[in-house]
Amino acid sequence: MRTREEFIEGLKKMKPNVWMGGEKVRRDDPRFQSSINVLGVTFDLANDPRYEKLFTATSHLTGKKINRFNHIVLTPEDLLKKQMMIRVGCHRVAGCIQRCMGMDAVNALYRITYEIDQKHGTHYHKNFVEWLKYFQENDLVGSAAQTDPKGDRSKRPHEQADPDVYLRVVEKRKDGIIVRGAKIHNTTAPQADEIIVIPTRVLVEGEEDYAVAFAVPGDWDGVKIINHQASVRPRKQWDAPIAHIGVSDGFVVFDDVFVPWERVFMCGEREFGGPLALQFAFNHRHSYTGCKPAVSDIIMGSAALFAEYNGTERVSHIREKISDLIGVAELVYSAGVASAVFSIKTPSGFCAPNPIYVNVGRRHAGRNIYHEYDILADIAGGIPATLPYEEDFLNSETKPFLEKYLKRKADIPVEDQHRCIRMLSDMLCSGWAGVWQVAGVHGGGSPMMETVAILGNYPIQARKEIAKYLAGIKSKDEFENEVEVKEVNEFLESIKVFSEKSK
Amino acid sequence: MRTREEFIEGLKKMKPNVWMGGEKVRRDDPRFQSSINVLGVTFDLANDPRYEKLFTATSHLTGKKINRFNHIVLTPEDLLKKQMMIRVGCHRVAGCIQRCMGMDAVNALYRITYEIDQKHGTHYHKNFVEWLKYFQENDLVGSAAQTDPKGDRSKRPHEQADPDVYLRVVEKRKDGIIVRGAKIHNTTAPQADEIIVIPTRVLVEGEEDYAVAFAVPGDWDGVKIINHQASVRPRKQWDAPIAHIGVSDGFVVFDDVFVPWERVFMCGEREFGGPLALQFAFNHRHSYTGCKPAVSDIIMGSAALFAEYNGTERVSHIREKISDLIGVAELVYSAGVASAVFSIKTPSGFCAPNPIYVNVGRRHAGRNIYHEYDILADIAGGIPATLPYEEDFLNSETKPFLEKYLKRKADIPVEDQHRCIRMLSDMLCSGWAGVWQVAGVHGGGSPMMETVAILGNYPIQARKEIAKYLAGIKSKDEFENEVEVKEVNEFLESIKVFSEKSK
Amino acid sequence: MRTREEFIEGLKKMKPNVWMGGEKVRRDDPRFQSSINVLGVTFDLANDPRYEKLFTATSHLTGKKINRFNHIVLTPEDLLKKQMMIRVGCHRVAGCIQRCMGMDAVNALYRITYEIDQKHGTHYHKNFVEWLKYFQENDLVGSAAQTDPKGDRSKRPHEQADPDVYLRVVEKRKDGIIVRGAKIHNTTAPQADEIIVIPTRVLVEGEEDYAVAFAVPGDWDGVKIINHQASVRPRKQWDAPIAHIGVSDGFVVFDDVFVPWERVFMCGEREFGGPLALQFAFNHRHSYTGCKPAVSDIIMGSAALFAEYNGTERVSHIREKISDLIGVAELVYSAGVASAVFSIKTPSGFCAPNPIYVNVGRRHAGRNIYHEYDILADIAGGIPATLPYEEDFLNSETKPFLEKYLKRKADIPVEDQHRCIRMLSDMLCSGWAGVWQVAGVHGGGSPMMETVAILGNYPIQARKEIAKYLAGIKSKDEFENEVEVKEVNEFLESIKVFSEKSK
Amino acid sequence: MRTREEFIEGLKKMKPNVWMGGEKVRRDDPRFQSSINVLGVTFDLANDPRYEKLFTATSHLTGKKINRFNHIVLTPEDLLKKQMMIRVGCHRVAGCIQRCMGMDAVNALYRITYEIDQKHGTHYHKNFVEWLKYFQENDLVGSAAQTDPKGDRSKRPHEQADPDVYLRVVEKRKDGIIVRGAKIHNTTAPQADEIIVIPTRVLVEGEEDYAVAFAVPGDWDGVKIINHQASVRPRKQWDAPIAHIGVSDGFVVFDDVFVPWERVFMCGEREFGGPLALQFAFNHRHSYTGCKPAVSDIIMGSAALFAEYNGTERVSHIREKISDLIGVAELVYSAGVASAVFSIKTPSGFCAPNPIYVNVGRRHAGRNIYHEYDILADIAGGIPATLPYEEDFLNSETKPFLEKYLKRKADIPVEDQHRCIRMLSDMLCSGWAGVWQVAGVHGGGSPMMETVAILGNYPIQARKEIAKYLAGIKSKDEFENEVEVKEVNEFLESIKVFSEKSK
Repeated sequence: MRTREEFIEGLKKMKPNVWMGGEKVRRDDPRFQSSINVLGVTFDLANDPRYEKLFTATSHLTGKKINRFNHIVLTPEDLLKKQMMIRVGCHRVAGCIQRCMGMDAVNALYRITYEIDQKHGTHYHKNFVEWLKYFQENDLVGSAAQTDPKGDRSKRPHEQADPDVYLRVVEKRKDGIIVRGAKIHNTTAPQADEIIVIPTRVLVEGEEDYAVAFAVPGDWDGVKIINHQASVRPRKQWDAPIAHIGVSDGFVVFDDVFVPWERVFMCGEREFGGPLALQFAFNHRHSYTGCKPAVSDIIMGSAALFAEYNGTERVSHIREKISDLIGVAELVYSAGVASAVFSIKTPSGFCAPNPIYVNVGRRHAGRNIYHEYDILADIAGGIPATLPYEEDFLNSETKPFLEKYLKRKADIPVEDQHRCIRMLSDMLCSGWAGVWQVAGVHGGGSPMMETVAILGNYPIQARKEIAKYLAGIKSKDEFENEVEVKEVNEFLESIKVFSEKSK
Repeated sequence: MRTREEFIEGLKKMKPNVWMGGEKVRRDDPRFQSSINVLGVTFDLANDPRYEKLFTATSHLTGKKINRFNHIVLTPEDLLKKQMMIRVGCHRVAGCIQRCMGMDAVNALYRITYEIDQKHGTHYHKNFVEWLKYFQENDLVGSAAQTDPKGDRSKRPHEQADPDVYLRVVEKRKDGIIVRGAKIHNTTAPQADEIIVIPTRVLVEGEEDYAVAFAVPGDWDGVKIINHQASVRPRKQWDAPIAHIGVSDGFVVFDDVFVPWERVFMCGEREFGGPLALQFAFNHRHSYTGCKPAVSDIIMGSAALFAEYNGTERVSHIREKISDLIGVAELVYSAGVASAVFSIKTPSGFCAPNPIYVNVGRRHAGRNIYHEYDILADIAGGIPATLPYEEDFLNSETKPFLEKYLKRKADIPVEDQHRCIRMLSDMLCSGWAGVWQVAGVHGGGSPMMETVAILGNYPIQARKEIAKYLAGIKSKDEFENEVEVKEVNEFLESIKVFSEKSK
Repeated sequence: MRTREEFIEGLKKMKPNVWMGGEKVRRDDPRFQSSINVLGVTFDLANDPRYEKLFTATSHLTGKKINRFNHIVLTPEDLLKKQMMIRVGCHRVAGCIQRCMGMDAVNALYRITYEIDQKHGTHYHKNFVEWLKYFQENDLVGSAAQTDPKGDRSKRPHEQADPDVYLRVVEKRKDGIIVRGAKIHNTTAPQADEIIVIPTRVLVEGEEDYAVAFAVPGDWDGVKIINHQASVRPRKQWDAPIAHIGVSDGFVVFDDVFVPWERVFMCGEREFGGPLALQFAFNHRHSYTGCKPAVSDIIMGSAALFAEYNGTERVSHIREKISDLIGVAELVYSAGVASAVFSIKTPSGFCAPNPIYVNVGRRHAGRNIYHEYDILADIAGGIPATLPYEEDFLNSETKPFLEKYLKRKADIPVEDQHRCIRMLSDMLCSGWAGVWQVAGVHGGGSPMMETVAILGNYPIQARKEIAKYLAGIKSKDEFENEVEVKEVNEFLESIKVFSEKSK
Repeated sequence: MRTREEFIEGLKKMKPNVWMGGEKVRRDDPRFQSSINVLGVTFDLANDPRYEKLFTATSHLTGKKINRFNHIVLTPEDLLKKQMMIRVGCHRVAGCIQRCMGMDAVNALYRITYEIDQKHGTHYHKNFVEWLKYFQENDLVGSAAQTDPKGDRSKRPHEQADPDVYLRVVEKRKDGIIVRGAKIHNTTAPQADEIIVIPTRVLVEGEEDYAVAFAVPGDWDGVKIINHQASVRPRKQWDAPIAHIGVSDGFVVFDDVFVPWERVFMCGEREFGGPLALQFAFNHRHSYTGCKPAVSDIIMGSAALFAEYNGTERVSHIREKISDLIGVAELVYSAGVASAVFSIKTPSGFCAPNPIYVNVGRRHAGRNIYHEYDILADIAGGIPATLPYEEDFLNSETKPFLEKYLKRKADIPVEDQHRCIRMLSDMLCSGWAGVWQVAGVHGGGSPMMETVAILGNYPIQARKEIAKYLAGIKSKDEFENEVEVKEVNEFLESIKVFSEKSK
């Protein structure tokens, strides 16, 4: 496993193919430091003996200790640990820990490449496993590139005026393929050692060229990363961990990029486009059952701390609002736990989180994110919006007045109160906050996408059968034998992990 | 284990102490049949080989097979099975399976009697275990009697104008105690073999007489059950399982009732009043994570069936509403699952569901029950409210018109459509429906009680520490060592059941 | 104007064509008394000097004093008075005052017959005005019959397997027309002197036969009313106004009914089918801005009264919930007021309530009705669901216990508390309550229908122009001249009523 | 009336007493330009003949034409025009028009000074009227300074450790008073010609020194403005009106400031502290019924425009969300309209908006603001969060890719799409956006403050009487005479403006 420093060294060695603010920039540009700080935590904690049981795993490919972010989920336990690792990691970085997308794409590819090979006699899985060993051994950071620009949303990929608005294969050669297109919203793209490309949606006949998956190094020829950086405002005097956090989102262009066959993991097997896109999405929604509770934790912790400083901690409506934040956090977390308990072992060995639970969990998070900020704003009052600048707290003409009038509870140092308010200001009234509000709605799939996934996976017919039985439309015998006994047996099978233990 | 018939025979033998509609009635009064039908299912399924793995358990006291409703929860597996047993049972009876209250009180007493004895050197636990063996051996039905009338809600028990508005010990004798008071909202009281009395709230000094728990047979001297019966409207022609469902709620008066010491499980140990009340409540909220998803299942199944009959199944807003019902059902179910995974082994051996998860789950259910009926009403349209009477469907003057104009999709028999609508009418526009709406809010504790429980059990201080770390108020080292490492280790300990399995 | 007694006399004279529970019944069947009680209030208050300014108006056709329920709305003042009349009337009958549907259909026909004649040179308006004079002079009760059975909801009228599932003209004769079909959910049908039939939806080419409007006496040949009656449970001892309330909903069959031309108000003018249906709907949604606040008033009054009796009136979350009920009531009421202020004078003289405001108001009401019951249930606790029967409060064996243990605040007579709880039980746990919950969602059009109407009437393009201006897509000059100045001028025109006054 | 240019000239002449970022700055510091742009609109439109009917009024003091922002509201018409003026003004500046606070404070003082004088025989009103003439004549901008720092929120003003955390009179002199304290969240403080100080809350005995109101010029001796500036990010290439918008919020210190008596409008009349604070709040909440609908208009216009560009305008869930935004806008607007229709003429002549309606309206706005941003984020997708920088759209290496892949519907110029997205990014992901989210919750009073005001003003007792009547606790006669007839008569009185017109 690498250290944070080795990770940074790696970035410095990469060829410059990142643009920002009109310039081509190096990966150690100071503006990227905030993103590097976040990813650095994933190295620190894996190397810290106090955290390693959660942040590392044993590779089933090599038997070696690896960073859990690069591990294939094989058991319900792996799912539970992944979820908790993310929650803990996110606490440290005031939000997204940023290394999950790669993990979730890797896990989806592990499953789907196996299933393509089973059906088509291809060798994608073998190639992928080789790549994965390299990825694990070198403790690399992967960035999943899924979202195509999509052009006119009322048209399918093959109906677009410009066929490139979904990334596609434009040429197949003996040694590899040429791909053209772009992938947007690629978190960590400028920090990623590897960019892992997968389709964004179900594909229909005639869209074979869009059924493509592969991995290339982040600085590969023809890959162009146009980056958006969102960082918390830096501090001049009252430095704090939150002031060192940020995120890079790359608009990644594939300008006729060559990918050698050993790095191609799907090419034309159209019917697997949807399953791969969805398995990634479901894995990533499972990740959200870890990170979104962490976001709620931070919001509730900040709100509760400020209420304490204000002397309003026991006020009834504030307590109820705090408890609502707990409700969101723990229902979403519960859904992740249930997705582990009712997980599904796939033929490849990959243990898939239950699709119903990851979707109801992620949707609940996405539907509530603005509501959670609403609660935070409600409890925080207007001061995060109008707090004077740090410099005015330093200027001797204004400092005494600001300290005198900012102070709330007498027994709390005004500096702590100031720090708390300044953090609230970052959390509520900064561009960085807005970016995470939007990401809270859309990251991992918008609530509407989860609704579609829920409806697509739920046994709604079995629910109708209950209604038919109760209404007298279906007989008791039929209901029991066709529906209910089956459901009971499936349940008992699912929870065997507990039964075996209890013996 | 008993059969349904043996259970009914038992009821017939009981002394009459039930009043309804101004008369003293026998327990086989035909108006009770709807309640007996519900409880009967708990006997049927335990005796059915297809269901016995879920509906029975092995008594840890006697080693014999017993009805799971009379079992002590000892493992996470038991919690998961209990939850699923309830969900399945409720599907069959269009709602509450009614035997959980007894189970939940028994489990709470198993724990708390043990802890009282540990502290006070009393013998409540031994007495309770003897009583429990008898309860399990004879496959009895227990009714938990918890809710006191409570008088003026702005006053504590000992401040009330009438001290009896909370049930209390009025005399201690050599052979037992005399209790006076009432317990209300006692579901199944007229069908219960045993009435199990526990306190309703935390008690303060001076309220020792209110700290009393015991069990007496349902027809015990001095016990007077004034019953309210809510049954689905009976059918004349279009009989259906839903038309045979009902619930008894007893207003149970304890008119200076003598309880022998061997049936007394707490008497004066004031500080355990709250813990016993809460353990029962938490157990019962765990039960709700099984039954409320079942209610959602029935609502969504009925709504989806009717939408199918109407030709509106693919309509976007209807699909989204169905998915909302799924969301409620499965988030609540998830919370129950998480409460098992993070359950807590108590000194008595009883495995307590995690209090945070049962409370967030039950609260989410309680907050959404009217919303779920809203969705059902929305999809069902106005017809459940204005459907002509069964007799008009039989009268030859009106029948042809009703059949002609009720019909929706051409390929569905109008009889099935009629049956579905009539069930919707029962579900939306009957007194029975109203009773279950109210119970959906208050049963097991209102949302506000769960809010209180959530706030009382949640590690909110640990959340504030995250905020302090991020704001620069607390150092990284302190945060890690005092908060985070501890949380990680506790998590790893909790999920050991999975780790051991995966070895 | 008639008295309540004259109205009842009129009912007795009508030919029996009502079926209920399998029998043909007379209009003075005791089961109808609860409905008659409601409508009777509209006669009582119009004849009461203290209320007549609100409940009567001067006919613009005859110059005579008439019941405002039979008046054509000609000014914003009329709209405001209509709204308030409904709110006051509904207070008296614990919900729907039931005479609005007729009024709203009459007003819609007044406008649309005029516009048809203007376009087609027909004489519908003249005929309608003659009928209306008769209607006003005789102070008749009208029942609007709009909702067709609709068959398969995924098909249009002309696509249905059975063409009669939307009411239609099956023959045109010299002296009149023959219509066949049914109209459902017709509130007050068995109490109505006149049944007023209008289309239910927009009609497309080929659906001319469905474009039909007319009025016939309630006992006209071929009209068959199959009635559903929902009444509050009668009382034995604790009589109360709420126990005398009920509603009739007729499933009205038109079995090849002849309508003479002078009673036909539309026949084949397809393009006016939608406008007539919508004008009725919008008028009726305006009525809802009066009745739904009244329902909220009753719910909040009952909840606040019970909280007072319980000693919980000052509890923070209860106060907040009461204030939420106020919010729903007064926002809906405000929308009605705004629909009057921004009303639209139509060519016929009829003053149409602003369509946007009636729709946002009615939708807000419909979306909140179950939520309001939720609040009521929350504050009421479990007792409405389990309250023992009246007879048990009379039986000397049980009465003392019930009175002892029902009592809450010491200074409130237990009889008042009992009365309050029994009313809550009717409001929450009766079939009548369920009927009004459903009606609260669907009456006047479901929330989804209002959404459609809002989108159809709102100047969303003007809103996009604001965005274009701010984004720099549209110039300031264009924005001002094309959009903003126009909006300002329209506004100033709308509020002239105020300007003139202030001069 | 002044022009925008004269207003700016005025600012330049003021003495420097503003600090920002650690420096004392002049009022023409370029960073203030964004605020000046907003206020400038209030001058432009008043001077524009196309808008003057809405943006000007005739002073009742001088008979001259004045800016409506400086006018005393005397009639319901004034309220309606004020509300619409604000809505129109806000459209132009993408949010708060910023000149309302002063207007609302002026109107509150006009009323309350009159009432103090009536009771105490003081001369505040005369002094105030003189000041007001000067204010109107010179077309000044006023900034209301209400919110005290408040210290420990669990303590009242006189209980605070530092008595200055609420602004107070520290000395009374012959020629005036000396005040000490601070007022925070003072929008437009650095642009205001006059700072108008009023109390923030109800005051109890012993808090006479806190009962103080006055006006001083913005650059008065001892007044120190420490400013926070929130401006939309400036553009380099794609300039747009939204890029020139911003807001100044001053933390205003009163460092022992002398106020001559003719500028003092309350001094020690403790019992009027609450009424003045509330009348300002209610006036300001009335302003919110104009500005918040404007914010919703902008959000919905932007969302609809983007949906059009995306090709998703007809998608069902997007349409429903747009209609939700309309619902929020128009319900809030309706509440303002109702507050005018049911306004209350006060003894001073000032026409007060109805307190119930302004509070239910403002609360509905405040409760929905984050929800509206949620909808905007939902429809906007992830691109506002990750949009590359303007410079990257100019750099020839990246420009062709960005234009190719940003493009949505083929027939819309990519530049327009880019402009739209960049505005969405400002609206969702900028510090300015966060400031307005917070202001949307708290400006004019948080939802909880409105809840308190609603409960304090609503005739809840009259609602209980309805319940008592229906439950049989109160007789019909008593109910009619004591409650209902009174309510009817009050209503008829309120709407006389309409009756008179219709005559």
